[in-house]
Amino acid sequence: MPHEYLFFDDYSEGAHPRILEALATTNVQQERGYGTDSFTQEAERLVKEKINKPQAHVHFVPGGTHANLICLASMLQPFQSVIAAETGHINHHEAGAIEATGHKINLVSPTAGKLTAESVEKVVMEHAGEHAVQPRVVYISQATELGTVYRKNELEDLRHLCNQHNLLLYLDGARIGNALAAKRADLHMSDIADLCDAMYIGGTKNGALCGEAIILVNQDLQENFRSHLKQRGALLAKGRALGVQFMELFKDDLYMQNAMHANTAAQKLADGIHACGYTFVHEPETNQIFPIFPNTVIESLQQRFGFYTWASVDDTHSSVRLVTSWATPDRATEAFIERLNELSKK
Amino acid sequence: MPHEYLFFDDYSEGAHPRILEALATTNVQQERGYGTDSFTQEAERLVKEKINKPQAHVHFVPGGTHANLICLASMLQPFQSVIAAETGHINHHEAGAIEATGHKINLVSPTAGKLTAESVEKVVMEHAGEHAVQPRVVYISQATELGTVYRKNELEDLRHLCNQHNLLLYLDGARIGNALAAKRADLHMSDIADLCDAMYIGGTKNGALCGEAIILVNQDLQENFRSHLKQRGALLAKGRALGVQFMELFKDDLYMQNAMHANTAAQKLADGIHACGYTFVHEPETNQIFPIFPNTVIESLQQRFGFYTWASVDDTHSSVRLVTSWATPDRATEAFIERLNELSKK
Amino acid sequence: MPHEYLFFDDYSEGAHPRILEALATTNVQQERGYGTDSFTQEAERLVKEKINKPQAHVHFVPGGTHANLICLASMLQPFQSVIAAETGHINHHEAGAIEATGHKINLVSPTAGKLTAESVEKVVMEHAGEHAVQPRVVYISQATELGTVYRKNELEDLRHLCNQHNLLLYLDGARIGNALAAKRADLHMSDIADLCDAMYIGGTKNGALCGEAIILVNQDLQENFRSHLKQRGALLAKGRALGVQFMELFKDDLYMQNAMHANTAAQKLADGIHACGYTFVHEPETNQIFPIFPNTVIESLQQRFGFYTWASVDDTHSSVRLVTSWATPDRATEAFIERLNELSKK
Amino acid sequence: MPHEYLFFDDYSEGAHPRILEALATTNVQQERGYGTDSFTQEAERLVKEKINKPQAHVHFVPGGTHANLICLASMLQPFQSVIAAETGHINHHEAGAIEATGHKINLVSPTAGKLTAESVEKVVMEHAGEHAVQPRVVYISQATELGTVYRKNELEDLRHLCNQHNLLLYLDGARIGNALAAKRADLHMSDIADLCDAMYIGGTKNGALCGEAIILVNQDLQENFRSHLKQRGALLAKGRALGVQFMELFKDDLYMQNAMHANTAAQKLADGIHACGYTFVHEPETNQIFPIFPNTVIESLQQRFGFYTWASVDDTHSSVRLVTSWATPDRATEAFIERLNELSKK
Repeated sequence: MPHEYLFFDDYSEGAHPRILEALATTNVQQERGYGTDSFTQEAERLVKEKINKPQAHVHFVPGGTHANLICLASMLQPFQSVIAAETGHINHHEAGAIEATGHKINLVSPTAGKLTAESVEKVVMEHAGEHAVQPRVVYISQATELGTVYRKNELEDLRHLCNQHNLLLYLDGARIGNALAAKRADLHMSDIADLCDAMYIGGTKNGALCGEAIILVNQDLQENFRSHLKQRGALLAKGRALGVQFMELFKDDLYMQNAMHANTAAQKLADGIHACGYTFVHEPETNQIFPIFPNTVIESLQQRFGFYTWASVDDTHSSVRLVTSWATPDRATEAFIERLNELSKK
Repeated sequence: MPHEYLFFDDYSEGAHPRILEALATTNVQQERGYGTDSFTQEAERLVKEKINKPQAHVHFVPGGTHANLICLASMLQPFQSVIAAETGHINHHEAGAIEATGHKINLVSPTAGKLTAESVEKVVMEHAGEHAVQPRVVYISQATELGTVYRKNELEDLRHLCNQHNLLLYLDGARIGNALAAKRADLHMSDIADLCDAMYIGGTKNGALCGEAIILVNQDLQENFRSHLKQRGALLAKGRALGVQFMELFKDDLYMQNAMHANTAAQKLADGIHACGYTFVHEPETNQIFPIFPNTVIESLQQRFGFYTWASVDDTHSSVRLVTSWATPDRATEAFIERLNELSKK
Repeated sequence: MPHEYLFFDDYSEGAHPRILEALATTNVQQERGYGTDSFTQEAERLVKEKINKPQAHVHFVPGGTHANLICLASMLQPFQSVIAAETGHINHHEAGAIEATGHKINLVSPTAGKLTAESVEKVVMEHAGEHAVQPRVVYISQATELGTVYRKNELEDLRHLCNQHNLLLYLDGARIGNALAAKRADLHMSDIADLCDAMYIGGTKNGALCGEAIILVNQDLQENFRSHLKQRGALLAKGRALGVQFMELFKDDLYMQNAMHANTAAQKLADGIHACGYTFVHEPETNQIFPIFPNTVIESLQQRFGFYTWASVDDTHSSVRLVTSWATPDRATEAFIERLNELSKK
Repeated sequence: MPHEYLFFDDYSEGAHPRILEALATTNVQQERGYGTDSFTQEAERLVKEKINKPQAHVHFVPGGTHANLICLASMLQPFQSVIAAETGHINHHEAGAIEATGHKINLVSPTAGKLTAESVEKVVMEHAGEHAVQPRVVYISQATELGTVYRKNELEDLRHLCNQHNLLLYLDGARIGNALAAKRADLHMSDIADLCDAMYIGGTKNGALCGEAIILVNQDLQENFRSHLKQRGALLAKGRALGVQFMELFKDDLYMQNAMHANTAAQKLADGIHACGYTFVHEPETNQIFPIFPNTVIESLQQRFGFYTWASVDDTHSSVRLVTSWATPDRATEAFIERLNELSKK
């Protein structure tokens, strides 16, 4: 029997209907290739407006690993490295993509998926001599791979440290919408752009068919970036396919609406789970939550719903990962909680 | 005044309407990520059926440069190189993408954009010693960057040479549809698959929104290919976005219909140009044609139509490149010829 | 005032006098270049005899980082990684040399500088999916960077694990002589060659002017290795300069005599330090020892002797690193202990 | 029967006796590692004095391919390329070493082994768009791989072109001594340093056991260069081994004496060959000469002397390459000419 609903990730559905409509509406108009079309230009304008950075450069690429490897390779000289959390996407989930561009990742044991200024400074201090790589970029994810969120003061601390040690701050925003829409969020998109040298805003995990928007805030990083894109295979001939999507996501509030829908669905799950008496590995903040269930409950739930068992907690309990999306219907969250209630009463 | 029609390339429009419909129809169905979805699986099946190679592996990537760099990097050991024509796309049009993966391109002066077995053998002979790179792959484009087409016997000669010298044959099929639909074509898709170790079938330039289908015919090349894709940023989370498009292109004859439409439009242009008394750099075969016009005529034409001036022929004449697509309307070709007639009568 | 003696490292002096004599004796004989000379061939023969591996391939390169990066790059496909201890030379002391060839190092927290089969297996288990790199080589140093030594059963355990998980075992033998000459050593050079797929025997740190002998035991690794050497700049035109040195080191027992001299000098230091009542971070085994002294004692010692303060132990004590070499004279060790005695009586 | 003398290359013998003496004299003195020793510092001072560039940075590496790949990789951003002659050492004789660092070589068909400003400018013009690599460095060899020499005005033309197009000029001086000692040479070492951004002075082919001196004249290229050296495996622990050699070569005129000896020996060969009525592919200028002989004569000569047949000239004649060195004795050149006379009289 197929699953009633999949909570595996936030890219199980296609695109938000408005994205498909925009692709259809713009379809016949002839445009120039490789991201020089009028739709892409309009999308760039809208993104820069949203982050309040008229001098920033914006580029669109098909996927997130692609965005990470191109940005980092463009920011680093051969002997320089990037500092990241062990849980960072670039460390364990990109098949060595960063190292394949020639650069080491200096790993830090994270706190709830996050780097602290102290932990980063320790890495810098340990790499003083010329026989070590030179750390140059700090990589963070917002929201993190564990669904947690950097607060404004945490980012400010990292920025301050970067300034002290001549480091660049790069933010992987695959789920930046979910971070900004978090209940206790104290940051706007423009605050993040103020604090980072470069970042990307994720489209794929927030309602686009594909596509991420790279933003180069630091003007020293802007020159020749299209050469990097071309060389790594990211300059699509029909760049319009990405431009149209971001034009639609940012021409009003669709991008944030999608993120809020996902977060709300996750919060409904979290509330229901909490009401059943279960706890979480990390306090739920965004659209990824990590409750702890008895293994028997997990097994039963997985007969009807798709989701990953995350890690063993003790002999009889494990944490699981539940992810909601811009498309998750109320009936799915309700059915999950209803079933959890049944299983928990036994 | 904007141009009446752009003959710059075959990726100026969006996607064939059936592609957009297919994306809409499949949109709400939840699927697993990274190309493991049912649509991608069906697309793989259809492509393998079309080339009559049940043992082949098929993978979808967003763009052509991406396909080339991943395939070639996966086929080469660090000290090995790829042989290509000076006009080959990987040489001059990919910003050093192949070299960025660590590999040299051994260049051959082409004949009408094509490699000959003799020219390839000469390169092999010149690289015998251990201080030279070892040529390992032969890269060809079908149709070529000049719109010309390899005949069956030419590919067979190259295949024979590859067998003699332990070389792999890789075919860049960004415009393979146009090659197969050429007037004097003597090859089927399956013939090409019989002769190559690996190839890609272009979607972007033949009606898809984006996407190319990599085909690994040689089974020695198949293992671990998804690791290469992931590492280079080509494994899209919503792989379905590519799978759905190729499912639509190959579920009946849409792929070849698109190519034939483009070729027919180019032929109409070529016939009209010929009727006006002009000649061509290369005999028109596919959807890229290279007529030679007086510079004054070119200047006048470019006021109404977009296209590239290619190369200077003499003090008063130049060649131009005209490209048609699956979407080129009759009115565009007719208007172009009509205007050319006017200009030629003066 | 200059230091009386430097215990910084084992490469502070030039070469063993017999090495210089051998270079002089062979100097006028004309030979072919790039390691095809008769001296290099004889050196290869002698090394293979010493390890009792007639089928092995032996190559000589100028330095140790060079040996590591070439061997590992030649053993790995692009998506594969090497497992190493955090203290491993390739991790922190080679300026990202391995990553610059495109490969990730998977780090393990070591036990006295050593990897255990369990810790390696854990890394393998954590890298099962296709979004992670594929661990393929296990890197170990013998002696380790902390002067400790793998016992035979420890290497056998690692070999067994490698066989189970299709891993290759690579041994950095920059100080292999010191490991084999360790007091409690239970391994011969041939035992190590039996257990490894590839390794290098260090010359620089054991009496050569420069040069390391790479040994490829596993025959699958042998083909085309000279192409790797050439491409990385390691194939010296006057390869004889390395061949002559290793011919001299291995034509009788000079290589092991040098190592034993260094170990004996370190043991004298260790005995004297112990007699003064001090302890060690790791039990002294080879020519690198790590005693713990009061900071005031360190300060006084460093006025007369050169050595590195290693790590802070508590507010008033630190560990230091003392390294002896094939050339360390008795008067140097005696003077050090005499001074330590004076300082300890106060 | 072994050959009476080898004219294969200029690295068939060991080192100039004074080099070996210097290594012996300095041998017992303890020094710090990795090129920070006093001998290396003195060698750096002497080289900078010779080129009259007190602000230059000097670094020593074991071999020439190593020097080339490190310098070029350090001068190029990922999307940038180096322009070189097809006959340039980096193109055909380094197993793809430059491409392995990620960079394309743009090839130019040379004139007598040399680049002209015109030929370089053509390459620059052809690489204007952002889909092409960006040429950034011009690579030349002095003397060239064909034994020819750039005149002062030729280098000035190249420098002027580099200034116009924001290019860097890099000179491979593996045989720079032979170029400076050429009969019609109009350049001093300091003139070359005035005109180049970076270069290396070859030791291996001019009397050293091994070693090349990299000179970074352009101050923008100096920072972090030791990190590049370390990462590529070129920072020898006993850096003194290279420093001592260059200290000896440059403390008086030994370097130029060696080169003059080699050139004189080649001139003797050339005169004798000319007297026998033979011609040359290129007018002999340095220690590599390329006479044209009947194939029967070549066959007979090769029974007594070692040298390479270079290229077929017609059905019965070929060019050969004869190379002399700092060590070539008069008896060798005389015996060769005597034998040639005998063979030519028949």
